Amino acid sequence: MQEEYVFRVIGYVKTEAKEVPRHWSISEVEGYLEINPEYQLGLRDFKKGDKIVVLFVFHQSPPFTSDKLLQKPPHRKELRGVFSTCSPIRPNPIGLSVVEVLEVSDNKVKVKGLDMFDGSPILDLKPFKAYQKNST
Amino acid sequence: MQEEYVFRVIGYVKTEAKEVPRHWSISEVEGYLEINPEYQLGLRDFKKGDKIVVLFVFHQSPPFTSDKLLQKPPHRKELRGVFSTCSPIRPNPIGLSVVEVLEVSDNKVKVKGLDMFDGSPILDLKPFKAYQKNST
Repeated sequence: MQEEYVFRVIGYVKTEAKEVPRHWSISEVEGYLEINPEYQLGLRDFKKGDKIVVLFVFHQSPPFTSDKLLQKPPHRKELRGVFSTCSPIRPNPIGLSVVEVLEVSDNKVKVKGLDMFDGSPILDLKPFKAYQKNST
Repeated sequence: MQEEYVFRVIGYVKTEAKEVPRHWSISEVEGYLEINPEYQLGLRDFKKGDKIVVLFVFHQSPPFTSDKLLQKPPHRKELRGVFSTCSPIRPNPIGLSVVEVLEVSDNKVKVKGLDMFDGSPILDLKPFKAYQKNST
């Protein structure tokens, strides 16, 4: 069985914010998702107000090591299994944020709610509404 | 800037279901997330009833080509930009499902709500509750 997969960067997060909140759910930070022009047509149906899932790379995180299987989240006192945390230090450093579309212009999606650093590589964008049915 | 990233398979989806629904939000299919034992400790805090995000590889999908930037979802009549769809044929074939934990036993997480094929490679597991604040 294939044990590794290679994924391509489809664009980058651009923001002038010097600090980003620790989580998108409490973020009002604005910025852009600058997508490689070869994928621009795929952005066609994003509309102002849409909430979208951004999968990105925690590109500044240190490599994962087995002593990071348990970590203490900032808002907790005790250690938690890494898969029950949002830590950027995880076996695959893939981040997931939900942001709100403000405007789409050519290959740039202006969004609100960023919690990524400027320059974070983007792997995928997905519609968020599909993820609400189970969110009781 | 780095244009590609390599991610490791941390486990596989196991299910005896012959058919899976087209989306997890309408799935009652049960199965297991079999995680590589080296990451087992990271599962420690999963509890029955938890909803978790599973990032996985659409490993049976054909390669993405530019004529797939617009696709017709099964429930729509018109073409949509790929990033506004859940199609498995996308620039990076990464899938996202939300499943419910039924039981954790060693390195196996029994779950309900699968929409992945048996054998789908798993990249990451994340807590779902954090994604509900914006889901109004």
